[in-house]
Amino acid sequence: MSTPDNSILGLKMPTDPRWVDIASVSLEEILTDHAFCEQKAATQSISLIQRYPDKIELVNALSPLVTEEWGHFRMVWAEMKKRGYTLGKQRKDDYVNLLLKYEPKNISANDKLLHKLMICALIEARSCERFKLLSENLKEEGLRKFYYKFMISEAGHYRLFIDLANSYYSVDHVREAWMQWLQIESKILDELSPRGDRMH
Amino acid sequence: MSTPDNSILGLKMPTDPRWVDIASVSLEEILTDHAFCEQKAATQSISLIQRYPDKIELVNALSPLVTEEWGHFRMVWAEMKKRGYTLGKQRKDDYVNLLLKYEPKNISANDKLLHKLMICALIEARSCERFKLLSENLKEEGLRKFYYKFMISEAGHYRLFIDLANSYYSVDHVREAWMQWLQIESKILDELSPRGDRMH
Repeated sequence: MSTPDNSILGLKMPTDPRWVDIASVSLEEILTDHAFCEQKAATQSISLIQRYPDKIELVNALSPLVTEEWGHFRMVWAEMKKRGYTLGKQRKDDYVNLLLKYEPKNISANDKLLHKLMICALIEARSCERFKLLSENLKEEGLRKFYYKFMISEAGHYRLFIDLANSYYSVDHVREAWMQWLQIESKILDELSPRGDRMH
Repeated sequence: MSTPDNSILGLKMPTDPRWVDIASVSLEEILTDHAFCEQKAATQSISLIQRYPDKIELVNALSPLVTEEWGHFRMVWAEMKKRGYTLGKQRKDDYVNLLLKYEPKNISANDKLLHKLMICALIEARSCERFKLLSENLKEEGLRKFYYKFMISEAGHYRLFIDLANSYYSVDHVREAWMQWLQIESKILDELSPRGDRMH
């Protein structure tokens, strides 16, 4: 699998280049934040299954994803222990909370699902971009390889959410929603100053 | 590993014998409810990790448990699909909600942990007892074996929560708390009429 780049994932706004410099000197915080990003991804997929148990393709696609995301939490935790780091407290995730504010409210559960899937795809795409930066810029070779693997996974998860959306809605409808969400995300990223002690 | 019995797990009140008769004719509902019990167990362990990330033994013990509980969700879902059943909506869990009402409120986070671990151990013990009934009384041999395996797992999880409590508190303190919770649970079970369309 080749290295995904921003244009493939469609993100409008590249990450501020200062981010990776700060991240590389805040490894314990970055790894803690990364571990909790994986936890939130697992929790988010569990919550989609709880909300849409009647959607068989969704339950089929997200059940193994939960196992994988939680496996990633454990991989990050194992890496932290190897380094003598401790798992810190989970921080408020401004990036995700801002995205959720744009979720349309007064629509049916069925229409809401499209937006929920777009938000999941977006978070995976942005994580993929950040992991790419870490995989290219961290000093330690071991960590660069570690983040290369995560980057590939996130690209796959982004695809999974887009494919799932395409299985429930028309391709045009999904493309239109995706374009809107890309705009929203780039606006949000522009408002947030880059903080190197967390993933987003 | 031998079959755990009620006296080993210490439960004060055996399940009403009518429960398994109703359960055996409501398999789709029982399996749906069982799937969501596994999901709640996974979610509950995730939430303990989020709340107590500084407790290394806890994170070490519960991280693999989340993987296992979620694996059980997937096993139940696979069994349902084999039978052409659909995953129904999650029901309100009166049993667990009643237990949570007895959680002491105005104590430190550290003291709360003991009670949270006792509640987890209790739910595992009761699930173990119910799975034992299913493994002995269901008509289909395949399902009896299916529930025998779950019964053994739940006994192991009950032990895990008790051991975790013993690693953070004195053995006497844990025993005293456990005895209190056994009394509470038997009172709750006495109040709830047995409903064969759900696990608890």
